[in-house]
Amino acid sequence: MRARAPASSANLGPGFDTLAVALDCYVSVEVEPAPSLSVHSEGEGSGLFDDASHLAARVAAEVLGHDRIAVTVRSQIPLARGLGSSAALAAAAAAAAGADDPFAVAAAYDGHPENAAASVFGGLVAATTVEGRPVHVPLPLAGDLDFVAIVPDRDLATPAARQVLPETITRADAVFNLGRMGLLVAGLADPRHLFAAATDDRIHQPARTALFPEAPQLLRGLVEAGALAASWSGAGPTLIGMVRSGSVDAVRAGAEVALAASGVPGRVLALRADRRGIAYGDDAEVLL
Amino acid sequence: MRARAPASSANLGPGFDTLAVALDCYVSVEVEPAPSLSVHSEGEGSGLFDDASHLAARVAAEVLGHDRIAVTVRSQIPLARGLGSSAALAAAAAAAAGADDPFAVAAAYDGHPENAAASVFGGLVAATTVEGRPVHVPLPLAGDLDFVAIVPDRDLATPAARQVLPETITRADAVFNLGRMGLLVAGLADPRHLFAAATDDRIHQPARTALFPEAPQLLRGLVEAGALAASWSGAGPTLIGMVRSGSVDAVRAGAEVALAASGVPGRVLALRADRRGIAYGDDAEVLL
Repeated sequence: MRARAPASSANLGPGFDTLAVALDCYVSVEVEPAPSLSVHSEGEGSGLFDDASHLAARVAAEVLGHDRIAVTVRSQIPLARGLGSSAALAAAAAAAAGADDPFAVAAAYDGHPENAAASVFGGLVAATTVEGRPVHVPLPLAGDLDFVAIVPDRDLATPAARQVLPETITRADAVFNLGRMGLLVAGLADPRHLFAAATDDRIHQPARTALFPEAPQLLRGLVEAGALAASWSGAGPTLIGMVRSGSVDAVRAGAEVALAASGVPGRVLALRADRRGIAYGDDAEVLL
Repeated sequence: MRARAPASSANLGPGFDTLAVALDCYVSVEVEPAPSLSVHSEGEGSGLFDDASHLAARVAAEVLGHDRIAVTVRSQIPLARGLGSSAALAAAAAAAAGADDPFAVAAAYDGHPENAAASVFGGLVAATTVEGRPVHVPLPLAGDLDFVAIVPDRDLATPAARQVLPETITRADAVFNLGRMGLLVAGLADPRHLFAAATDDRIHQPARTALFPEAPQLLRGLVEAGALAASWSGAGPTLIGMVRSGSVDAVRAGAEVALAASGVPGRVLALRADRRGIAYGDDAEVLL
């Protein structure tokens, strides 16, 4: 069986470890019976882990209870860039292996229920852990909101990006994030209410800037080019602008100028929200 | 001119200093020209501050630039119970005095933009302060969601309730609140997604419980009686249950049993969301 899952952008500024949106950049996993385990990968990340250690193989084998499978992975999602590639891969592998609850499987493997929920269900989600179990809820996402992502050619692995975070914060900073998250959720539901302050954050972005000093100027570049708001995507280094559909081209062009001016190698992607989540069979094709 | 504003319930658990919902319990303020200042009040809080120190008189005089006015206040909103009485009063007084932006006036006087926004605009709101200015956004609120409030006969002034709060919190607790706020916002938009964990909080309710030790058992009583979720209202002592319209009577009856069992004197109110905010003139009547 073949299944496909979308990439996702988590946090979106204030919604640290909570909010994520699915994006139309995909990974597919095909699982077929075979005498013994084999893994073949194409596209992003191809060849890096083509053995039993491949996340897709581990997830599919656990769901099936055996590893007599041939696993084929085709990915458009850049790895270790803050676009939820591992949650999407785990979700697609769980679904391809026939898991009843790909969300629970992906959240357990990835540790990020918000990325897993976006990849499994699509759209904008809030997710967290309640009494040890991942839970998710859908949030309204305006139909005319698109995304422009600056994807630096620079690794920023999530564990390292997490180690720089402070263990305690002031109550004022926690309340700051709650307030901005309120603005952001309302603005993503209706872009008439979306403005740049909605993605302000005091929990993770300031500390992570030490790992990526050009981030603030690139975020400003996205907003100056016409994005309504902009934030880090997940743990970075990808930065994502929230853009009215009509101004995607202008924002993409402005982001390319800002990226060139920063001297950071990388690329700019125009992305739409994925509103479907996991797709199966003929609907699960990924073009490379 | 006469204007009316609704009460409000702020915080709603995880949305500390951010979320508020307007409730159909009102205060009206009438401002008329007069040779010198006079204040007359009826209903809740009547006679307590019938002089120039009355919040309605101070707000109206500042908006007008003089105090040659007769001010009449009629209120259904219990004072110092966590139902946003001062924000509603300031909003109604500002509107009755002809303020262009009653929200800005009420937020400045009350210090709580979330209560002020709910009282001025109605419905469910998120509000915060951005660069020193109060801002607000509307959030979706399901049409079939009502509220049952346990209103103890016990003062719990906001400043005292704030002094008990910790100045620093762990990042984990801040993230806990962000996650629960995501669940809550989704659940208030669609009660199919609303469940009791959505109103969990680690920023203010645990510390405030020292001031009101019966609160946890009363919150449990609301949920056991059929509320989908329950939280402190503002700084308390009012506790509020979020209830499907069809189960209001059952939850009210259960809350009365829980209140009696707790030994806390007080009353139980069934309330609906106010979706209008400030009303003027003939629409601003308040029955006492």
